[in-house]
Amino acid sequence: MNDTLEAYQHVTVIGGGVIGASWAALFLAKGLTVTVNDPLPDVDKRVHDQLREAAPALKALGLPTDGLDANLRFEADLDRALAEADAVQENSPERLDFKQDLFARVERAARPDTLLMSSTSGIPATEMARSMKQPGRVVIGHPFNPPHLVPLVEVVPGKDTDPETVRRAVDFYTALGKQPQVLRKECPGFVANRLQAALFREAVNLVVQGVVTEQELDGIVTASIGLRWAVAGPFRSFHLGGGPGGLPAFMQHLAPGLESLWKDLGDPTFDEATVKLLSDQADFGASVEELETARDQAQIKVMRVLGEA
Amino acid sequence: MNDTLEAYQHVTVIGGGVIGASWAALFLAKGLTVTVNDPLPDVDKRVHDQLREAAPALKALGLPTDGLDANLRFEADLDRALAEADAVQENSPERLDFKQDLFARVERAARPDTLLMSSTSGIPATEMARSMKQPGRVVIGHPFNPPHLVPLVEVVPGKDTDPETVRRAVDFYTALGKQPQVLRKECPGFVANRLQAALFREAVNLVVQGVVTEQELDGIVTASIGLRWAVAGPFRSFHLGGGPGGLPAFMQHLAPGLESLWKDLGDPTFDEATVKLLSDQADFGASVEELETARDQAQIKVMRVLGEA
Repeated sequence: MNDTLEAYQHVTVIGGGVIGASWAALFLAKGLTVTVNDPLPDVDKRVHDQLREAAPALKALGLPTDGLDANLRFEADLDRALAEADAVQENSPERLDFKQDLFARVERAARPDTLLMSSTSGIPATEMARSMKQPGRVVIGHPFNPPHLVPLVEVVPGKDTDPETVRRAVDFYTALGKQPQVLRKECPGFVANRLQAALFREAVNLVVQGVVTEQELDGIVTASIGLRWAVAGPFRSFHLGGGPGGLPAFMQHLAPGLESLWKDLGDPTFDEATVKLLSDQADFGASVEELETARDQAQIKVMRVLGEA
Repeated sequence: MNDTLEAYQHVTVIGGGVIGASWAALFLAKGLTVTVNDPLPDVDKRVHDQLREAAPALKALGLPTDGLDANLRFEADLDRALAEADAVQENSPERLDFKQDLFARVERAARPDTLLMSSTSGIPATEMARSMKQPGRVVIGHPFNPPHLVPLVEVVPGKDTDPETVRRAVDFYTALGKQPQVLRKECPGFVANRLQAALFREAVNLVVQGVVTEQELDGIVTASIGLRWAVAGPFRSFHLGGGPGGLPAFMQHLAPGLESLWKDLGDPTFDEATVKLLSDQADFGASVEELETARDQAQIKVMRVLGEA
């Protein structure tokens, strides 16, 4: 275990749903002791089930999976769950009032130096920390699902977040082998989900317009922009699409064409007909579980070959 | 050489620019004889330079690169360039009147059974074929750049394109190891560039808003959605994001959140300030050529591990 993780030996995972259990799997595989805090009576079984499901991916990532639950415990009482916590990864329901109350309680029950992070995908840290005496203590660490597999963690400070909290969160995630990226401003949905939403809006439009089916569109993405963006992001890609002059040359030549495409992009909504069409087409030839296993295996192969695992 | 390619032994590449030369490199590496038709006096040198640049990628893809230019010739006269052509891949300037005249001439000079394909990224086959006697003969085969490397070819028939032309183009590209996808309708920009434009619009917005820099955004993409979309397209990804209920369940739970994100997405333009900001940030730490080599090598590693090369 590296020095940074030594300082975060005891992690409390608040909320044992899909995201929380995936974080727990990663923390355990990295040798940390995990306390899951969740009032649900069957949380024990659910988390254990998810550990089993995550094991093949963890193993493929080169992490140990034998006796993964040896350092796992469950504690439904929040105060007791936080007594020993060096770090907290919170994954409770996405309701502002709930999280505000929760973090006020977390602040009282945890040590003053406990690192507090939230997986929220939608609630700004500024709002979440409103009821805290020391709002500087909490920062968002928003994973891309599932956190035990996908490298990205968006670290999003609120207006009051202490820079030292941000620094510690980045260190913590980096030590776990993740790729944290600090955002410079809060914005709804953060960055990855906004970009995903932007592409998906046009994807829905093209299927609704009958240009392609869902499966055809997926095939187009994996055979072009997906492959490309796995190794070079959109700015770098266009920088390389402009010849020796890079992005400035690219914009000079192709900005008018891009702007005219922007004007032509669709503006669909999830009305009844659209939901029905998208649902009717949603046959991917195997069960969700089988598809998920295949996707995770392919994902890990790509990460290994790119040196990200 | 497989049976399909036997039928297309002589390919004429019209236009020896970046796209044309990349196509030529692929055709030659696949054992075909290539005639480049381009009036530019230095086309010979330009194409040879590009063949040299493409060689490492072709080699990494498992293709032969020794004596790549043994079956390459140049013929500035269109009629003579087409005399023996089994297939034509056209990459001339993106001007409607130019392409209309060109294809009318191509039709007269080529044999009646010559397969006619255009790399255009913006001109519909329906328009391009307006001056042809047999508009059914031409179909768009739009590559994702560079065609010798990226698998996708969007095959876009016009209103008058003969289904047999479409079938032959798909067979031809498949035999070359590409992943052709036929679109069901013509639309501006086709599919991959529209999706790319949609994501890039929000990427520009987030940089303009100061949420992230270009490099930070690129890092977010490669560590999340890029990695994901290399192995599973956006519909399949959301199908797997909905639990056992798949895409229908996903939409039930997350459509409202997605729609509210859609409303919040930005609407930037390439005004002077935006172009300056994006240009100022466009420092990717190495020359375009070095970055391109690194990207292509990484891309090929991913394709090989996914069995696409």
